Amino acid sequence: MSEALSDSVGTFADLVAAGTSTPGGGSVAAYSGVLAASLGQMMCNLTIGKAKYLEVEPRVKEIKADLERLGARLRELIAEDANSFESVLVAYRQPKETDEQKVERKRRIDIATRGAVDVPLETAQRALEVLQRLADLAKIGNPNALPDVTVGSRLAETAVKGAYYNIGINLKTLADRTAAGIIERQTTELIIETERLAAEIESTMLKQMESDG
Amino acid sequence: MSEALSDSVGTFADLVAAGTSTPGGGSVAAYSGVLAASLGQMMCNLTIGKAKYLEVEPRVKEIKADLERLGARLRELIAEDANSFESVLVAYRQPKETDEQKVERKRRIDIATRGAVDVPLETAQRALEVLQRLADLAKIGNPNALPDVTVGSRLAETAVKGAYYNIGINLKTLADRTAAGIIERQTTELIIETERLAAEIESTMLKQMESDG
Repeated sequence: MSEALSDSVGTFADLVAAGTSTPGGGSVAAYSGVLAASLGQMMCNLTIGKAKYLEVEPRVKEIKADLERLGARLRELIAEDANSFESVLVAYRQPKETDEQKVERKRRIDIATRGAVDVPLETAQRALEVLQRLADLAKIGNPNALPDVTVGSRLAETAVKGAYYNIGINLKTLADRTAAGIIERQTTELIIETERLAAEIESTMLKQMESDG
Repeated sequence: MSEALSDSVGTFADLVAAGTSTPGGGSVAAYSGVLAASLGQMMCNLTIGKAKYLEVEPRVKEIKADLERLGARLRELIAEDANSFESVLVAYRQPKETDEQKVERKRRIDIATRGAVDVPLETAQRALEVLQRLADLAKIGNPNALPDVTVGSRLAETAVKGAYYNIGINLKTLADRTAAGIIERQTTELIIETERLAAEIESTMLKQMESDG
C-alpha cells in the first residue's frame, strides 16, 4: 500500500516547487478542486449499493456523475492555468521599438491578460459547483465519510480563493475596466457563497465530533 | 507542457475517489501540506540568486531547506495515515468470542486508535510548521510569488483542519481519556495559531491586490 500510494502522487509537487512561474498557485488551486471532487466521489462510492441509503441512491448517483465531470474539467484547468500565464509572459516579451510594434504588443498583452483572468474564473466556478455537491452529500451520504467530505469542502474553498487571488492580480492590468468591474463583483459573490457552504459543512462535522462524547 | 503537467498529478485523486476508506481525508490533508511546502519552495527559488533579495538570501535558503524536510515528512504521512486507519479496521475485525479474545481485541483497538490519532496530529504539527515558514516568506520573498504562497497558506490550513477532523473522530473512542483531553487542547492551540497565520498572509495578499488599482 505505502509504496503504491507514494508513487500515486506523481511529480506535480516537484514541478510546483521548481523556480519557474508555472505551474504555480493557479494550477494548484485547480488541482485542489480535483481532490475536492475525488473526496466527494469517495463518499458517493461508500453510499451507493448499501441498503441503508437505498432511498437517496438515485440522487447520490447524479452527484457522483457531476463530480466526475467537474473533476475532469478541473484537471484540464491545471494545465490551462499554466498555459494562460505563459501567454502573458510571452506577450510582455514582444518587441516594442516601433509604434506599430507597441500597438501590437499592447493588443497581445490585453488578450493574454483576459485569458489569465478567464481561466481562474472558471476554476472558481467549477470548484464552487463541486462544493455545492459536497454540501448536498454531507446531508444524505454515508456519515462515515463526513470527515473526508469536510476536507474536500476545505479544498474546494482553497480552489475558489486561490483562483480569486490570481484573478485579482490580473484584473489590475486588464485594459477593459468595465469587464474588470463585472468580474470583480462576480468573484465576490462566488467567495461569499463558498464561505457560506464551507461553514455549513464544517458545522455538521463539528456536531459529529461532539456527539456521543 | 500540458500533457506532461496532466501526467504529473498521478493517480492519487483516482485512489481517493475509489469506494475504499483509504486513502481518504487524512491522506489528502497530508498531501495538502506537501503542496503548501512546494508553493513555499517555489517562492524561495524565485527569490534566491536575485540581486534585489541578496540581503534576505541566507534566511530564504534556511526556509527552503526546512520546507524540503517538512514536505518530505508530510509525503510519508500520506501513506502512514492510510496505514493507521487500516490498522483500526483490522483491530475491530479480531475475534471476540472468548473473554481472552475480547481483552486482546480491546487492547489492539486501543493501540490502533492511538495511532490513528498520533498520525494526523503529526500532520497538523508539520503543516503548521510549513505555514510558519510561509508567513516568514510572505514578508521577505519575491512578491511576484505572493499569490502562490497565499494559496500555499490556504492548503496548510486545510492540512491542519483536515487532520483535526480525523483526530476528533478518533479521540471519541480513545480509552485513555486523560491523553484525549491533552491532545484535544493541543489541537485547539494548533488551530488558533493556524487561523492567525493564514489570515495574516491573506491580508498581505489582499493589500497587494488593492494596490496600484
